[in-house]
Amino acid sequence: MPSKKVEEFNSERNRLNDLVLKYSDKEIKRFFSLDQQVYRDDALPAGTKEMLGLVASLVLRCDDCIKYHLEKCHENKITTAEIEEVFSVGLIVGGSITIPHIRRAFEFWEELLK
Amino acid sequence: MPSKKVEEFNSERNRLNDLVLKYSDKEIKRFFSLDQQVYRDDALPAGTKEMLGLVASLVLRCDDCIKYHLEKCHENKITTAEIEEVFSVGLIVGGSITIPHIRRAFEFWEELLK
Amino acid sequence: MPSKKVEEFNSERNRLNDLVLKYSDKEIKRFFSLDQQVYRDDALPAGTKEMLGLVASLVLRCDDCIKYHLEKCHENKITTAEIEEVFSVGLIVGGSITIPHIRRAFEFWEELLK
Amino acid sequence: MPSKKVEEFNSERNRLNDLVLKYSDKEIKRFFSLDQQVYRDDALPAGTKEMLGLVASLVLRCDDCIKYHLEKCHENKITTAEIEEVFSVGLIVGGSITIPHIRRAFEFWEELLK
Amino acid sequence: MPSKKVEEFNSERNRLNDLVLKYSDKEIKRFFSLDQQVYRDDALPAGTKEMLGLVASLVLRCDDCIKYHLEKCHENKITTAEIEEVFSVGLIVGGSITIPHIRRAFEFWEELLK
Amino acid sequence: MPSKKVEEFNSERNRLNDLVLKYSDKEIKRFFSLDQQVYRDDALPAGTKEMLGLVASLVLRCDDCIKYHLEKCHENKITTAEIEEVFSVGLIVGGSITIPHIRRAFEFWEELLK
Repeated sequence: MPSKKVEEFNSERNRLNDLVLKYSDKEIKRFFSLDQQVYRDDALPAGTKEMLGLVASLVLRCDDCIKYHLEKCHENKITTAEIEEVFSVGLIVGGSITIPHIRRAFEFWEELLK
Repeated sequence: MPSKKVEEFNSERNRLNDLVLKYSDKEIKRFFSLDQQVYRDDALPAGTKEMLGLVASLVLRCDDCIKYHLEKCHENKITTAEIEEVFSVGLIVGGSITIPHIRRAFEFWEELLK
Repeated sequence: MPSKKVEEFNSERNRLNDLVLKYSDKEIKRFFSLDQQVYRDDALPAGTKEMLGLVASLVLRCDDCIKYHLEKCHENKITTAEIEEVFSVGLIVGGSITIPHIRRAFEFWEELLK
Repeated sequence: MPSKKVEEFNSERNRLNDLVLKYSDKEIKRFFSLDQQVYRDDALPAGTKEMLGLVASLVLRCDDCIKYHLEKCHENKITTAEIEEVFSVGLIVGGSITIPHIRRAFEFWEELLK
Repeated sequence: MPSKKVEEFNSERNRLNDLVLKYSDKEIKRFFSLDQQVYRDDALPAGTKEMLGLVASLVLRCDDCIKYHLEKCHENKITTAEIEEVFSVGLIVGGSITIPHIRRAFEFWEELLK
Repeated sequence: MPSKKVEEFNSERNRLNDLVLKYSDKEIKRFFSLDQQVYRDDALPAGTKEMLGLVASLVLRCDDCIKYHLEKCHENKITTAEIEEVFSVGLIVGGSITIPHIRRAFEFWEELLK
C-alpha cells in the first residue's frame, strides 16, 4: 500500500496530466504515448530502462521525473543497492549540483519502501 | 480581473524584484532594462516575441519564467490553440523532461483564462 | 541554389540520418515522424514554429539544430530582421553563453542568403 | 545568530544529508568528502572559491546550492557589493533565466545579514 | 583491432588526459580516480553502469563522453539492439536536441563494430 | 607574443563578431556592451571576475567562452595554480561531463603560457 506522500504525488500528477490532455492536440498526445512505449520490456528489461530514465532525470535535475522513475524502478523490483549505484553514476557525471536532488530522491525512495 | 493565484504570483514577483533592485548596481539594472526592450513590437510583433520567450523558458525549464511569459502571451491575445503549439514545439525539442513544467503551465494558463 | 556550405551541411545530415534509421527501431522512427509533424502549419504558421524551434535550439546551444531551423526559416520567408530579433530574445534569455552560437548562426544565415 | 529561515534551511539540509549517508556506499561518500576539499584555502582563498561555487550554482540554477554557497560566502566575509558582482557575472553569462534564482538569492542573503 | 577513427579518438583522449594530470593537483586526480570506481561491477554489472553513463552523456549532450561510454559498452558486450534502446530512452527524455549526438554516436558505434 | 593557435582563435572570433554586429540591431549591441562592463575592476578585481566567467563557462560547457576567459585570466596575471583550482571547483560542481572541456582548456592555457 503506497505511503501518503507517494499517493499525493501520484494524484497530483494524474490531476495535472488530465489537464494537459484536456488542452492538448494530437502531437502532445502522441508524445505521451511514445513516452510510455520506450520503457517497455524489449532487448533491455523494463527495470533497466527505468534506471536509464532515472539517471537521465537526475543529471537533468527534474525532481518530478526522478520520483516517477523511482516509483517505476520500485515496481520493477530494483533494489536499494542498485538505486544507490544509479545515483553514484549520476552524481559523478552530473556533479555536486545533483546532490539536492539525490537528497530528495532518497527521501522519496524511503517512502516507497514503507 | 486576474485570479487570486495570478495576483499572488505577480505580487511575490514584484516584492522580490524590488529586493533585487535595492541591492543591484548599474549592470543588473541595465540587464533588466534590456530584458524589457527585446520583447517590444518591431520586425516581429510583441505576441510572437512572448511565444519565443515562452518556448525558451520551457526548454530551459524555469516555472517562474514560463508563468511570466504566459501572462504576457495572454495580454497579447495569444490563443489557447497557439499556446498548445508552442508547448508541442518545446516538448519535441526539449523532451519529456519538460512535461512537469507543461503540466504546471497549463494550470497557470487556466487561471489566466478565468 | 544552395551555397556549397549549405549543401555540405545537408548531405552530411542526410548521410547520418540514414545511419540512424538503419539502426533504429520503431520508437526512434516514431519520434522522427512526430518531430516533422509539430512544425506544420496549424494554429501557428510554419514560419513561426520554425522560429520557435530556432530560439529553443539557440538557448539549448546546438549548432546543428540552429542551422536546420535557419534553413527552414529561410524556406518559410522569414526575414533577416526577424531572425535578428529571434536571436535577441535567445541572447537575453540564455545569456552570453549563446554568443558563439549566434556568431556561427549569422555566418550560416549569410550562406543561405547567397 | 542565524535567522529562523537560515536555521530551517540548514536543519533540513542536515536531515537529508544524513539520509543520503545512510543509504550511500563508498563512492558517494568519497564524492562528498572531495566536495569539501575543493573549497579549502590554497592558491585561491576559500572566499574566492565560494564565490566560484556560487556563480556556478547560479548559472546551473540550483536554489539549494546557491543558498549553501551564500552562507559560506557570508562566513568568509564576502561583502554585499561583492555578492552583487558575482550575480552580475552570472546574470550576463546565464541570461534572464537566472533572474528568479537571483531574486530568491538576495532574499536569503538578506536573512544572512540579519 | 580498433578502427583508425577509434584509435585516433583514444590517442587524442590519452594525450589530453596526460596534460590534465600534468597540471592537476590532488582534487582533480581524486575525481579522476573516483570516476573510474563508479563504473565497476557491483550490485549492478559494469555493462549496465556504462549504459547509465551513456544515457547521462547523451541527455547532457557531450560527444566525447558518448564515444567513451560507447567504447566501454562495446567492451562489456552490450549489443546494438541494447544501444538502440539506450538511445531511445535518451531521445524521449532529452528531446530532438539530442538527435545530432545520436547521429554521430551511431557512426562511432559502427566503427566499434568493425 | 601570442602563439599561432591563440592568434587564430582571436582572429576567427573577431571576424565572426564583426558579422554579428553587421546584422545586429541595438539590443544585441547593448548586450555586447554590457557584457564588457560586468568584468571591469570594481568591488571585485577584474581577475576574480574573469575566474567567475571561466567557471561559469566551464559548468555550462562552452569551449569558446572558456578560451576567451582563459585569455583574459592570463592578461590579469592569474597563475596556473589558480586556474587549476578554478577547474577543480567547476569539475566538482559540474561533474565528469566537464572533463573534455578541461582537457581542451589546459591545452589552450599551455598555448597562452608560451
